[in-house]
Amino acid sequence: MSLSGFSSCEISDALIKLSLPHGGHIPDIHLVSPVNSDLRLCGPAYTVQFVLASDPSAPKLTTHFVDTVPEGSVILLDVPPQTKNAVWGGLMTAGALARGAKGVIISGRCRDIAEHRAQGFPVFSRAHSTLGQSPFTRPSAVNIPLTIIPQGPGADVFPAVTVQPGDWLIADEDGVVCIPKDLEAQVVELAIKGREIDDRCMKDIQAGKGVQQSFKLHRGK
Amino acid sequence: MSLSGFSSCEISDALIKLSLPHGGHIPDIHLVSPVNSDLRLCGPAYTVQFVLASDPSAPKLTTHFVDTVPEGSVILLDVPPQTKNAVWGGLMTAGALARGAKGVIISGRCRDIAEHRAQGFPVFSRAHSTLGQSPFTRPSAVNIPLTIIPQGPGADVFPAVTVQPGDWLIADEDGVVCIPKDLEAQVVELAIKGREIDDRCMKDIQAGKGVQQSFKLHRGK
Amino acid sequence: MSLSGFSSCEISDALIKLSLPHGGHIPDIHLVSPVNSDLRLCGPAYTVQFVLASDPSAPKLTTHFVDTVPEGSVILLDVPPQTKNAVWGGLMTAGALARGAKGVIISGRCRDIAEHRAQGFPVFSRAHSTLGQSPFTRPSAVNIPLTIIPQGPGADVFPAVTVQPGDWLIADEDGVVCIPKDLEAQVVELAIKGREIDDRCMKDIQAGKGVQQSFKLHRGK
Repeated sequence: MSLSGFSSCEISDALIKLSLPHGGHIPDIHLVSPVNSDLRLCGPAYTVQFVLASDPSAPKLTTHFVDTVPEGSVILLDVPPQTKNAVWGGLMTAGALARGAKGVIISGRCRDIAEHRAQGFPVFSRAHSTLGQSPFTRPSAVNIPLTIIPQGPGADVFPAVTVQPGDWLIADEDGVVCIPKDLEAQVVELAIKGREIDDRCMKDIQAGKGVQQSFKLHRGK
Repeated sequence: MSLSGFSSCEISDALIKLSLPHGGHIPDIHLVSPVNSDLRLCGPAYTVQFVLASDPSAPKLTTHFVDTVPEGSVILLDVPPQTKNAVWGGLMTAGALARGAKGVIISGRCRDIAEHRAQGFPVFSRAHSTLGQSPFTRPSAVNIPLTIIPQGPGADVFPAVTVQPGDWLIADEDGVVCIPKDLEAQVVELAIKGREIDDRCMKDIQAGKGVQQSFKLHRGK
Repeated sequence: MSLSGFSSCEISDALIKLSLPHGGHIPDIHLVSPVNSDLRLCGPAYTVQFVLASDPSAPKLTTHFVDTVPEGSVILLDVPPQTKNAVWGGLMTAGALARGAKGVIISGRCRDIAEHRAQGFPVFSRAHSTLGQSPFTRPSAVNIPLTIIPQGPGADVFPAVTVQPGDWLIADEDGVVCIPKDLEAQVVELAIKGREIDDRCMKDIQAGKGVQQSFKLHRGK
């Protein structure tokens, strides 16, 4: 059994047991493509930092960020929160598919939604836009740690998640979770145990034995 | 004809006529399960107050809040707005179904979306999360009045709705409405009249007689 | 080839090339009806300004705003951002259909979502509500310029779009775009060129030639 066998919620439960204060959860990023699907995206992170185009001091890339996506990876894009433009569109999906990427997770906006759905490419984002990158933002660095700042109510109290290149990302309709690479084995072990316990709870709860009694019996509290 | 025969909008129209300043509407809670459905959830409220787990002074429950859900009720959960964790998941839905609850409305977040949809259990919430309750929040009281504070733009000017246990809750794709128990008969009466008038308006409007003339003829203004 | 042959993104790309700082994009308005569709709404704007009902100084209309909708137009409604009520419902859709309108775009909320979907009428809005207009808002003027203020993060830095009556509106799942009437011919010309270039890029990218090389070859950079 590997990470990809578990839901984002099962993974968060394991990370909470390992005392990560955020349970790996990057809040408020939604499944956009495919639509209303039970798809689960799972793979190692390839990270891309975007900056405002008006920031001349940030580093510049010499290669397009899609052309260096490793096969089998999940692309994670971090974009300044005040931007209203998309940083991912149909040509990016085509490039990512050509390189064998598994999907993209955007702390920011996407566009060309119909194209991603038609190509069956998994896209998670905060929102949509009709605008492309230029002249608003540009990619500045790849394969660097990204600290994804929460947005909306509670942003000031919920801890930010830092994603290292190669960390595992899992995303489904419930949201996005990052698993630090060196915790993989422990997370799988805890998730297996967690599922066994939840399965026992589920059977008893469905049989009408009550949530409290089922939790006490199988979870010990 | 009973409350369940009317849409959330027809109910709000009746409550506005009865001079409730908010028309019973609890804004910005969305249908999550089933997806894109014309489902209408209707039943008496079973209320649950959640608090931050960091608040030791709030009361504690001795029984799991799902184990005391009355048959036929609609569960209403109120959660501190800054939380990024879910307070409802697949095991809760199983417990609620075992007790014959009709659905759940969450002023907060849910998780295990695929499970609710698979089980056909109606879930309305503000947002989603991969995180469970612990260590973020805990239920503190059941069957108490809940004052649901609006969120987002206009939160400071739109009046909060207070839901008493046993008040009626109606929810569909347009949103969530609370009907004070002692207004039920008046609301049904006004909603019947409202529908008759709207039906007459609809026929005339579809026949091209104009909105203004149709309203003047059937609504008197 | 006319405007309606292009997606909202292709149009925004053309408007950015014409140096409109916002690319015509009115952010954060979503496709509500039909659901999950690749529908594209396109037509000249018929504009309606709503004000708070508590504002007695704003002008009053003598005719219902739906009764003066021109055939083939796209209705654009601008509503004060703090409102929690809808300004568009099932009867409005019936009236708009009777007059041959193509759809409605609401910088505000809609209700009766099931009715719009059942009638196949395109509706775009920021959010939903169970509340009708009265006693919250009222239409104050039609066929006037509307300056749609962005909302949410970045609202203070992203430029507002001003829509003149008769400007073109295009909306799809990616969002809403306004094309100033006098730019129509230039936009179509640029969008045709843009599509040709994007098509060539797409073929090369799908063939594995790389995004950077394809852009350099076909876009010249």
